[in-house]
Amino acid sequence: MSLPQPCPTTPSPAEPLDLAAAAALEGVRGANPLVGAVISGPDGAVLAVGHHRGRGAPHAEADALTRWRAARAQDRALAAVDPAACTMHVTLEPCDHTGTTGPCSLAILDAGLGAVRYAVADATGAEGGGAARLARAGVRVTGPTGHAASAALTDRWRHVRDAGRPWVTAHLAQSLDGQAAAADGTSRWITGPASRAHAHEVRARVDAIVVGTGTVAADDPRLTARDAVGADLTVQPVPVIQGRRDLPAGAALADRADLIHVRSHDPHAVLATLAAHPGPWPHGGSRPGHLLIEGGPHVLGAWLAAGLVDEVFAYTAPLLLGPGLPAVAGLPVGTLAEGLRWAPDPSEGGPVRTLGDDVLFHLAPTAKD
Amino acid sequence: MSLPQPCPTTPSPAEPLDLAAAAALEGVRGANPLVGAVISGPDGAVLAVGHHRGRGAPHAEADALTRWRAARAQDRALAAVDPAACTMHVTLEPCDHTGTTGPCSLAILDAGLGAVRYAVADATGAEGGGAARLARAGVRVTGPTGHAASAALTDRWRHVRDAGRPWVTAHLAQSLDGQAAAADGTSRWITGPASRAHAHEVRARVDAIVVGTGTVAADDPRLTARDAVGADLTVQPVPVIQGRRDLPAGAALADRADLIHVRSHDPHAVLATLAAHPGPWPHGGSRPGHLLIEGGPHVLGAWLAAGLVDEVFAYTAPLLLGPGLPAVAGLPVGTLAEGLRWAPDPSEGGPVRTLGDDVLFHLAPTAKD
Repeated sequence: MSLPQPCPTTPSPAEPLDLAAAAALEGVRGANPLVGAVISGPDGAVLAVGHHRGRGAPHAEADALTRWRAARAQDRALAAVDPAACTMHVTLEPCDHTGTTGPCSLAILDAGLGAVRYAVADATGAEGGGAARLARAGVRVTGPTGHAASAALTDRWRHVRDAGRPWVTAHLAQSLDGQAAAADGTSRWITGPASRAHAHEVRARVDAIVVGTGTVAADDPRLTARDAVGADLTVQPVPVIQGRRDLPAGAALADRADLIHVRSHDPHAVLATLAAHPGPWPHGGSRPGHLLIEGGPHVLGAWLAAGLVDEVFAYTAPLLLGPGLPAVAGLPVGTLAEGLRWAPDPSEGGPVRTLGDDVLFHLAPTAKD
Repeated sequence: MSLPQPCPTTPSPAEPLDLAAAAALEGVRGANPLVGAVISGPDGAVLAVGHHRGRGAPHAEADALTRWRAARAQDRALAAVDPAACTMHVTLEPCDHTGTTGPCSLAILDAGLGAVRYAVADATGAEGGGAARLARAGVRVTGPTGHAASAALTDRWRHVRDAGRPWVTAHLAQSLDGQAAAADGTSRWITGPASRAHAHEVRARVDAIVVGTGTVAADDPRLTARDAVGADLTVQPVPVIQGRRDLPAGAALADRADLIHVRSHDPHAVLATLAAHPGPWPHGGSRPGHLLIEGGPHVLGAWLAAGLVDEVFAYTAPLLLGPGLPAVAGLPVGTLAEGLRWAPDPSEGGPVRTLGDDVLFHLAPTAKD
């Protein structure tokens, strides 16, 4: 086949999946996996790169196709490249189901791409099957090719999905010496506005926020996801209270019709209650896909000790408070070797970010699979 | 005056002192001030930039002159520029005394520079006077011009010098939850090798390291500054023990002839003892210029509470230890408003650095002058 040479947007990489995996890391963790996609031309040049930005946003393949179409609309040489001579490289097998977005298998067929390479198989019935449908339609499908960086993107997500539970994010807002409040309980505000803005972005991703009865009594939180000017967003997480005490009279959360109170200190009891809840959950679906554990210290400690935390956001302010209310309590650690060690999470802007004067640690469990 | 146009190494900045101040921030804080210098040509083009790298290293002016001479040796157009038509811009008044390096006033005269502009006066008798000598020798001297970024470089250093005490650095090595050891006292190692390497760089800068008797009993430290392969450096800080208890029999520090034991919990008593010590101190001089406070928690708390800490290095590992030995204890903080709030220190690589999996916070006191 002889075609006009396109003007490559990026030089041809040794392995397009490397580029796709790097793009995937720009996404956010949660209910959906991190996925990246690259469309290459007949000569291997990269024509478009896409990634998934989280629940509700287009899948990586759709994002790459949108960019590819935009590039073709602006560049005559690109537009002349036969789609059938192009390849979609994707870190995870394209899906074949309709959720908040259409199936990627159909989107790839619609675009007329001739070949698909994917790194990691998507084994579940509902989500998988994209490769088979594509192959039946005559697309040259290669995969799973195996690609360490691609597999690493979804290791923890697949672990959580296989366990049949939601992705769990823990939120710590603390002083440099690990305190979530001073000795008298004052805590507003330890962290600065940039940290709090990120925390609201995370609230907006989740189906439910879990806090303890002690936090309700001490802080009377609303637990709503708010925008930059403090207005409630349209989609709101469900507030979940964990603990045996009643809500104080007049608590802000008492008005919430969707409030769930689990009268237990055991995170597994919370998971069971939420799994039995009929839904629909705020972001759709009959099961919660993403929980945020905001505290207090014993609630965070219980989820951490149970090995049920999939990522930690620790907002740390350059402040020394001395002995107050620690951000985490009740960990079963007696000696250094028993400490809960975490790994830097490279997704979503890198493992360490400065937010105003604060530092945000984004942490992943150390390998336990 | 008509001269051949030099080939500028950098375009002419609006304010050369901005460039000098930015260069100064690459230096390290301690006994000496952060200083930056820029040499500009007759057309304002920047010909050389220099900065001071810490005690024992050339002053900023000397560093800039070395780079200027090297550039002239390599570039005929630069070599043809009359030094008398060039200006030295420096963030702090050039010194006029001989310490570990010669007086900058003489170095500038030797180089034949025609003009000097400085931002901030150096008020002490011993160190100052450079401007006057330069003016007497016929150099066109302008200053102090006032320049906020230049003044900010030395605000804290001048405060410490005026107080007649050494610069004090506090070292915290801790878990994410602020613990310096687990409940059973185990602490080796909470932080990783990159953090420990930086901590040894800091030890190498100081005249003395202060630890409490509890730290000696728990860790039996040697307190030596060691290189990347663990070998002791030639110049070693003096070990200082603070506290009333005797050293345990067989403690590693008991062999050190230079050991100073101050039988008090009061940092002012330590400062008084060190000020009365005849010296010479490891880096020269009859007074210690730089102290490092390494712990334990009550020693750090006492120095912090006394307002005697000029910078904090907090090495924080992504590890949760639960209640153990906090890195800092005994702070007189009962409520959030009493918390000791710190500011990011932009010098020496920026306020937040990743060192392996750890994060190094470099913190400055919030303004109290």
